[in-house]
Amino acid sequence: MADNITAQSKIVGRQSVLFQNSPYIIAAASIAGKKEGEGPMGAHFDVIQQDPLLGKDSWEEAESELIRQAAEKVLEKAGLKNTDIRYLVGGDLLGQLIATSFGIAELEIPTFGLYGACSTMGEAISVGAMLVEGGYAEKVLALTSSHFAGAEKQFRFPLDYGNQRPYSASWTVTGSGTVIIGDRNSNHPKAGEASVVIKGITTGKIVDYGIKDSMNMGAAMAPAAFDTIRQNFEDLGVEPSYYDKIITGDLGYVGKNILIDLLKEKNYDISGNHMDCGIEIFDKDSQDTHAGGSGCGCSAIIFAGYILEQLRIKAWKRILFIPTGALLSQVSFNEGKTVPGIAHAIIVEAE
Amino acid sequence: MADNITAQSKIVGRQSVLFQNSPYIIAAASIAGKKEGEGPMGAHFDVIQQDPLLGKDSWEEAESELIRQAAEKVLEKAGLKNTDIRYLVGGDLLGQLIATSFGIAELEIPTFGLYGACSTMGEAISVGAMLVEGGYAEKVLALTSSHFAGAEKQFRFPLDYGNQRPYSASWTVTGSGTVIIGDRNSNHPKAGEASVVIKGITTGKIVDYGIKDSMNMGAAMAPAAFDTIRQNFEDLGVEPSYYDKIITGDLGYVGKNILIDLLKEKNYDISGNHMDCGIEIFDKDSQDTHAGGSGCGCSAIIFAGYILEQLRIKAWKRILFIPTGALLSQVSFNEGKTVPGIAHAIIVEAE
Repeated sequence: MADNITAQSKIVGRQSVLFQNSPYIIAAASIAGKKEGEGPMGAHFDVIQQDPLLGKDSWEEAESELIRQAAEKVLEKAGLKNTDIRYLVGGDLLGQLIATSFGIAELEIPTFGLYGACSTMGEAISVGAMLVEGGYAEKVLALTSSHFAGAEKQFRFPLDYGNQRPYSASWTVTGSGTVIIGDRNSNHPKAGEASVVIKGITTGKIVDYGIKDSMNMGAAMAPAAFDTIRQNFEDLGVEPSYYDKIITGDLGYVGKNILIDLLKEKNYDISGNHMDCGIEIFDKDSQDTHAGGSGCGCSAIIFAGYILEQLRIKAWKRILFIPTGALLSQVSFNEGKTVPGIAHAIIVEAE
Repeated sequence: MADNITAQSKIVGRQSVLFQNSPYIIAAASIAGKKEGEGPMGAHFDVIQQDPLLGKDSWEEAESELIRQAAEKVLEKAGLKNTDIRYLVGGDLLGQLIATSFGIAELEIPTFGLYGACSTMGEAISVGAMLVEGGYAEKVLALTSSHFAGAEKQFRFPLDYGNQRPYSASWTVTGSGTVIIGDRNSNHPKAGEASVVIKGITTGKIVDYGIKDSMNMGAAMAPAAFDTIRQNFEDLGVEPSYYDKIITGDLGYVGKNILIDLLKEKNYDISGNHMDCGIEIFDKDSQDTHAGGSGCGCSAIIFAGYILEQLRIKAWKRILFIPTGALLSQVSFNEGKTVPGIAHAIIVEAE
């Protein structure tokens, strides 16, 4: 492993930040759907919900309930109350973020609604970590979610329509992941035990390679992941081996290959330490998920459930986590627009 | 006018921040539609577009063009290039923020997409100011937009349907407003001339009084405005007279009365210094706009075009600006859900 990078300023290069008082992860929680629970990552989630409607009347209400449960679970795991949280930052895939709004209203926490499509967990942790280190909050709750049936209805067709899915299509994950980010100088009882810290971020630009196929989001997002990862290497002056793992959000099988090829053209080889949450979450052969998992919830529950665990047990010391988003709507798709992508990277370390 | 409040910490009370090195407004720009240009505020906007489609093929593309022009105009007014901006923060009302994504992609600026419905300008300035004072950016571009025809299609009915509007309905403003927020210690040539500064913020919670009428958004948002304004007074320990003006986003005539009544119940009388952008932007009698103007663009273009000017010429010394948002979607409305509100307050001062 390479040495730690140190910087004079928080601002590093064109798009990166290195924290001087790195915020830490106080707690994380993941609520997953049945199919996600049956996949290879199932054992790592806090709760697996067998009922896709979670006892509610609509897919949207079910997703709000996922978020509500994830927020309650992370507060419980941290031993905190809602009033201990200064800001809630997050969002979801549904138009006007209704899953989040209705899911968190009763928490009564000052809220910044965020939208970065499936990159939202990266965006939320980035903003949350800056608010903590900047001195604006002792604790910030970052969260996101997605729901298979709600996303199909929002972006493609309602499930009842029974449309066929091409092999390049991904399967939207049902789940909600959340983390509480804290200031290590605060008086939270677990602050002394801080073991997983957010060392820095690289914030993505919108990248548009002209892809127009909403059934091939991996291809739309791979150029954005490439752009952010390459920028991270340049800003920090590091090679791919600086990280034990480079973990993208939900590129799936199609997007993974594009990403690795694009980086190879710039003489960066990440094939040895790359992992994609969309590939890991389902068993491609037995679960009929084609290109892999996707949705804000995909990388969020794997981060909250699996990635943080690997850092805590020191299986990995330093990772780059890059949730990836495809910035389309059913309107932009129907109007024949391209699918631009965005990706936000977080440097996470075990101490 | 009351004395300046000073604080030991940036964090003040339950929901407020007072900056210690207040970020300043480097420049602001407003692009407005024809109807907005014909209203009482028309003379204050940088550009008035006579063509509602702005030469494009769809309402969504027209809104993206509004945003693109607003961003270009503010860069031009500030004498800056896109590469001078560290972060772009903002969003719009359309599902998945497509107006913003397609409007700003070519700027290639690291971007945090935000959604706070019509409170988005308050959210964007809040996040932007914290990123600047926190040391993460010398310059942040905050922006938002709305478009009458795009919003009607998104939330109510396409214009071609010719539906009637009840008197409680507001008229979505066509316009995009943007500001560049800067660090006064940076080397930007205009930094020494800093005259309008962001002194603090009060971040809103989601507030739901159970309103279900999407044609009466003023009533849905007034409780959120009330909650944030009351919290601002409490956190800072000030009375309404601390501000020369208390300016809400788009409550309109219906919401304004509710807000004033709710605050009176808590012994705060803002009737003498309250102003609402939704009321100011149109002439109610001659422009047939019923409850007033609304949309992210409403408070954004009045802030960029009129409010900052009043501060620069010292007509006002200190204001509280509170854009207000109604967190509904056409899906949540059709499923019979309530319309929760949110409001984010910004303390702006002339120096």
